[in-house]
Amino acid sequence: MTVRPENPHQARLLRLLRQDGARSRAELGEVVRLSASKLALELDRLAQLGLVESGGLAASRGGRRSGIVRLSSDLRFVGVDIGATSIDVGVTNGELEVLGHLSKPADVREGPEAVLDQTMELVGKLLTGETAETHGVIHGIGLGVPGPVSFRDRTPVSPPIMPGWDRFPVRESLTREFGCPVLVDNDVNIMALGELHAGLARSVDDFLLVKIGTGIGCGIVVDGGIYRGVTGSAGDIGHIRVDEDGPLCTCGNTGCLEAYFGGAALARDALAAARSGDSAFLAERLAHEGVLTAEDVGAAAASGDAAAVRMVREGGRHVGLVLASLVSFFNPGLVIIGGGVAGLGHALLAEVRSVVYQRSLPLATGNLPIVLSELGGTAGIVGAARLISDHLFSAE
Amino acid sequence: MTVRPENPHQARLLRLLRQDGARSRAELGEVVRLSASKLALELDRLAQLGLVESGGLAASRGGRRSGIVRLSSDLRFVGVDIGATSIDVGVTNGELEVLGHLSKPADVREGPEAVLDQTMELVGKLLTGETAETHGVIHGIGLGVPGPVSFRDRTPVSPPIMPGWDRFPVRESLTREFGCPVLVDNDVNIMALGELHAGLARSVDDFLLVKIGTGIGCGIVVDGGIYRGVTGSAGDIGHIRVDEDGPLCTCGNTGCLEAYFGGAALARDALAAARSGDSAFLAERLAHEGVLTAEDVGAAAASGDAAAVRMVREGGRHVGLVLASLVSFFNPGLVIIGGGVAGLGHALLAEVRSVVYQRSLPLATGNLPIVLSELGGTAGIVGAARLISDHLFSAE
Repeated sequence: MTVRPENPHQARLLRLLRQDGARSRAELGEVVRLSASKLALELDRLAQLGLVESGGLAASRGGRRSGIVRLSSDLRFVGVDIGATSIDVGVTNGELEVLGHLSKPADVREGPEAVLDQTMELVGKLLTGETAETHGVIHGIGLGVPGPVSFRDRTPVSPPIMPGWDRFPVRESLTREFGCPVLVDNDVNIMALGELHAGLARSVDDFLLVKIGTGIGCGIVVDGGIYRGVTGSAGDIGHIRVDEDGPLCTCGNTGCLEAYFGGAALARDALAAARSGDSAFLAERLAHEGVLTAEDVGAAAASGDAAAVRMVREGGRHVGLVLASLVSFFNPGLVIIGGGVAGLGHALLAEVRSVVYQRSLPLATGNLPIVLSELGGTAGIVGAARLISDHLFSAE
Repeated sequence: MTVRPENPHQARLLRLLRQDGARSRAELGEVVRLSASKLALELDRLAQLGLVESGGLAASRGGRRSGIVRLSSDLRFVGVDIGATSIDVGVTNGELEVLGHLSKPADVREGPEAVLDQTMELVGKLLTGETAETHGVIHGIGLGVPGPVSFRDRTPVSPPIMPGWDRFPVRESLTREFGCPVLVDNDVNIMALGELHAGLARSVDDFLLVKIGTGIGCGIVVDGGIYRGVTGSAGDIGHIRVDEDGPLCTCGNTGCLEAYFGGAALARDALAAARSGDSAFLAERLAHEGVLTAEDVGAAAASGDAAAVRMVREGGRHVGLVLASLVSFFNPGLVIIGGGVAGLGHALLAEVRSVVYQRSLPLATGNLPIVLSELGGTAGIVGAARLISDHLFSAE
């Protein structure tokens, strides 16, 4: 059975405790503007439901010492981040701190059954593994997939790189296995939620999270919540045109951002540079590994390989050109760049910044930080946990 | 003294009556979910404040006949739409129906004193003119200006085409003159509000309004309200890059959308076509009038002049390219094209549609109507009246 708050006051209290951790009753009462007796009533009820617990007494503020309240230490959420080439699974507490995290390579093109089986296996390992902290009853699962999701139906829709996933009942499969509520969203949206909860965007209401992985996508946060658009495809920036005369894209058009940059384009360019003799570094890697990835380009660039440095700079310029348009249009308070390819680091960032600051209007860029994500691989997990806890910590 | 509702129930009742016109008490009670006695209390108070009035009895629905309520017929809002080359002023009733409308050419570059003097003169004419309906006490004034506005400070900020307007206290000037509340916003935002209230967007929560006038801007509506961005410059799409190698723009960059299209670019291209002999139609107009505008290009295109048709098509293509990016990013439910240059009509629209439908992802364009505004010159006035009435019909 799903335990949820019974009214908006209770929901608000749970979200406050999730964000800020343990608080004294006196502090909570001031924030939610409830009388001491009404607050006590709601907190007692939340304790009965097993959602909060007592945490001793606060230091005196002059009068009687106020009791400390915190989210129940039994609360466990699972966050799942399915990428094009990997699965990440984490277990969090009620405050969405990651208590355990497992990751494995996987190919999303193997289809939902195979990928969800592997996901469930990872979750199972965390729930019964070496770390006792991640054992216990799961209260809910949030899950991100690398393609568009109909938020209304909560299923993937026509995901271009995910054959077999169209309208697949992901939610039902996981609920059947784990007996708890499940929510599904696009991987970029959950990454943005992760940044909102635990990353650089904690105090920013309107921001963009650009994820550069195999493909390129954008999470849009408006007024502290994900903006999904009317059919759930908002932020799908990988096929924005950079140049009419550019390379052919998998979507059939030419000159899309993803045809220029992202994990897949970088692997293609790396192979070309290795074979043409433009990059000795990449040629040697190719000879050793038999295959090249965006990470190899990063390593080559770090070693000073001219061809790789050029790829990173060119990539940053193309991302910057698209981002400049979006900054003019959306006027965000912050732009965060994340995802695997963001591992290319500050050379990439410098180029993106340079183009955006040059091409967008001063009014939009005057106070606009453009930064790299500091959450690394956990943004998706924290965001997925946030997605399901937002749902469970509401009274609707 | 400003009369405003005293609580959220009263505010909600006023907004309902503004949107739907006269309603029976029975209908209102069902929508706002208030008991009959509580509803009667709130409506009585609104009547005492002079904001609503009785409108007779409704037809029987089986039992006692319910009383009709409507917004006070004395309510008057003024909507002002200052463009780069014109001033439009209208007086509306509480339902934001335009009761009188005056328009005159004006040059915003003459500075705020001159332009606001002309604005006040137009308002004065409506308040004392031939049409008795537009006489009376103004409850509030909404005003749009053709440049960025800091919504927090309610003043224009660094408006590129409005020398002298930076931080000018527009609001204070008009309040001093008319003794009523005044709100200022960007002209494109108020146009979007007009479409939301009375245009094709009445039932759409998330949409874009692209205004093509002297310049090009975009109003963004999220969840039924204007999205302004963190510094109020959201929607500033005129300087989005179409092509690196494009014409030099007034902003200093090359290839901006406004450097390709919009009233100013069309006038420039028309002059070139007239002088080079490419267009006999435009050459003749130039000889007669001494000057060419976007309207002349429209007339030439309508007469089948090949050079003018090409200008319209090229313009549509450039607008379409930018719009395709924004549709992929924002996934709107509707795109409305308005402003003076939208008068070029369906040839322009056909080209915009063709590019957007080709370049954006199917998921974003599957059910996306791209249409011309049907409000013509009144969108700005209605939107400006809506801006101030939103403010006055709220309980904050």
